[in-house]
Amino acid sequence: MSSKNSNKYSFKQFMKEISEYVCKASDMINDYEVDKFTNILLETLQNNKKILIVGTGRSGLAGKAFAMRLMHLGFNVYVLGDTITPAIYGGDVVIAISGSGITRLVITAASTAKEIGAKVIAITSYRDSPLAKIADHVVIVPGRTKIARENDYTVRQILGEHEPLAPLGTLFEITLNVFFDSLVSELMQRLGKTEEDLKKRHTTIE
Amino acid sequence: MSSKNSNKYSFKQFMKEISEYVCKASDMINDYEVDKFTNILLETLQNNKKILIVGTGRSGLAGKAFAMRLMHLGFNVYVLGDTITPAIYGGDVVIAISGSGITRLVITAASTAKEIGAKVIAITSYRDSPLAKIADHVVIVPGRTKIARENDYTVRQILGEHEPLAPLGTLFEITLNVFFDSLVSELMQRLGKTEEDLKKRHTTIE
Amino acid sequence: MSSKNSNKYSFKQFMKEISEYVCKASDMINDYEVDKFTNILLETLQNNKKILIVGTGRSGLAGKAFAMRLMHLGFNVYVLGDTITPAIYGGDVVIAISGSGITRLVITAASTAKEIGAKVIAITSYRDSPLAKIADHVVIVPGRTKIARENDYTVRQILGEHEPLAPLGTLFEITLNVFFDSLVSELMQRLGKTEEDLKKRHTTIE
Amino acid sequence: MSSKNSNKYSFKQFMKEISEYVCKASDMINDYEVDKFTNILLETLQNNKKILIVGTGRSGLAGKAFAMRLMHLGFNVYVLGDTITPAIYGGDVVIAISGSGITRLVITAASTAKEIGAKVIAITSYRDSPLAKIADHVVIVPGRTKIARENDYTVRQILGEHEPLAPLGTLFEITLNVFFDSLVSELMQRLGKTEEDLKKRHTTIE
Repeated sequence: MSSKNSNKYSFKQFMKEISEYVCKASDMINDYEVDKFTNILLETLQNNKKILIVGTGRSGLAGKAFAMRLMHLGFNVYVLGDTITPAIYGGDVVIAISGSGITRLVITAASTAKEIGAKVIAITSYRDSPLAKIADHVVIVPGRTKIARENDYTVRQILGEHEPLAPLGTLFEITLNVFFDSLVSELMQRLGKTEEDLKKRHTTIE
Repeated sequence: MSSKNSNKYSFKQFMKEISEYVCKASDMINDYEVDKFTNILLETLQNNKKILIVGTGRSGLAGKAFAMRLMHLGFNVYVLGDTITPAIYGGDVVIAISGSGITRLVITAASTAKEIGAKVIAITSYRDSPLAKIADHVVIVPGRTKIARENDYTVRQILGEHEPLAPLGTLFEITLNVFFDSLVSELMQRLGKTEEDLKKRHTTIE
Repeated sequence: MSSKNSNKYSFKQFMKEISEYVCKASDMINDYEVDKFTNILLETLQNNKKILIVGTGRSGLAGKAFAMRLMHLGFNVYVLGDTITPAIYGGDVVIAISGSGITRLVITAASTAKEIGAKVIAITSYRDSPLAKIADHVVIVPGRTKIARENDYTVRQILGEHEPLAPLGTLFEITLNVFFDSLVSELMQRLGKTEEDLKKRHTTIE
Repeated sequence: MSSKNSNKYSFKQFMKEISEYVCKASDMINDYEVDKFTNILLETLQNNKKILIVGTGRSGLAGKAFAMRLMHLGFNVYVLGDTITPAIYGGDVVIAISGSGITRLVITAASTAKEIGAKVIAITSYRDSPLAKIADHVVIVPGRTKIARENDYTVRQILGEHEPLAPLGTLFEITLNVFFDSLVSELMQRLGKTEEDLKKRHTTIE
């Protein structure tokens, strides 16, 4: 193990690169895509429909963190792979998350959802990915995904020419977490919900 | 549901508040605490010891995201609540995460770990919390936790006087995610590992 | 690895020991305890209350299998540790599972549930265990638990004098699985539900 | 809710039907199939290979219970969907569980495993199912699966002509649990391991 003195970057530099990336990435989020996504979520409340969140690995964990808050907001939300995952039917909404848009298990689940008549929302970095192509609505969240691509155009736009310090899909995953949490604030604002409202539904045994 | 026009804040403002919070929070992370934490993790590699990560809710999810990367880096790491969680013995390391430092299940697990002779690292916002008090080493990650406290001094230092837009523990949880991901970059640097090294251990079936 | 010819027991003997154990164990289940448990579960439907299932390890997995069927039957059921676990309040029901009755995380969760005013049902092999003592209702499911006890009286009654071939808590865990599945049949019978009713709620994406 | 007096079957009858089913089902397990499966598992120990367990719903839970015991026995075992699931490569073993043999997510994972060069073991009730067809080795575990089939020949052979009292895939899932636990006893016997050996690896924090 190399001594600390030989380190090229400090811990704070790593934290700043990631947070500055997210800050700049927020400018590349398309307002129309977010607005349509928000409306689809709100409609599930009015029509008494379910939301199912599908994702693997660290993207799946970001999806779970989002699912918890949707539950706190009163949405009827579930996560694929959890114990309690009820039947999904036509009119329900499936949020399928994959930075690369090529994760097989996510695509398999999204395809089944389509056949059932559910509405599929893809959250991905690539508009031309297989996942985006089968989705009813796509929200592009920029970030370098674990599948390195020559054309990581948006990442280079944000970071400039230097290689990102954060490995694999880290920049996508963190941007995704901040994206979902901002959507929670947006939904609170639209629904006129306060922090106290959310607290009432927060788990009491932990 | 209120119309979008009446919204006080835009979606981008939410994203920027969170990412700017994290950026400023990075200045409040104590370098010595991080350095000691990093060394404890690296020692598990040399001494062939295990790491067990303990956390509930959204903090637990951040812990899981960190656990995945530790595995990619070659650490012998497990998550409490996963199917495969082996016996922990003296000399092993338990990372116990709780923003408030009062989460009962985390404290119960950390206490058991102490009795067994494992080393407990607390990741929390409160140095005087019950969790911090039983830990062998504490790393303070600033953030407003879900337990609202009058003395959210660090949060006000970072945000100024205005109330945070993000509800409950959001600011802690996102800062925690960025903190752990920066620690991954730090560990890569110390171990001389490249992104390609991590990729070799990344799950191939998903 | 020893050659197969030197094996003392055949694979079928292992299967038969376990299934015969369960068959005999069913005679030691107390009808009144089961009836009261069933009534408490049915009351949650009438009073629009939640059920939370708490267990660790293999007992926790049996609890999850039960939770799935309760959901198929229309109960409002959750599992501690799942992503979607809402707040539990007074009048809700917590099913706390621990063969030995001394599992710390289960006792911690059950104690919190009691403080909140939830009804705690203990599923355990030991009536004098700490878990049983804090519960509002106890159902004894016989079986050797992973904590070997001299006074494994019920197990010897069932197996005779020979040592069980199945290790650790296996006999408890399998009996528990069959116990819960029989309760599902009992609930179907009481509610007048058919297999087709359950199928409608079975997950459609898998 | 109908009164208890009108019940056609008693709780004990439900428990006896299930355990007697498993007892008879054990006669229909093919010894050669089990022996080959056991050898494949033992070879992973000698060749330092990984085992990955794949399953959804209640079959997946049975797979997780088996995974815990394989870990206690010293196998290098993982579960798809757990936090810690490393890369699988050629020579590793994937145990794919699906009663019906048509569960899409299981087939998708098994296909990917085949492409990678891993050895796929299918645990299913149907030898002609899509899952069985792509597997390197098939072990037939009899049971009525959640997909009702006219040709549930083996189930009728075991139960006689009456309809099973246990709904959906219950009989398969319980038989599966007992099957896996018997395999654990078989592996202990072949490896010369005692209960004490397993206990040393059993989780100490719970």
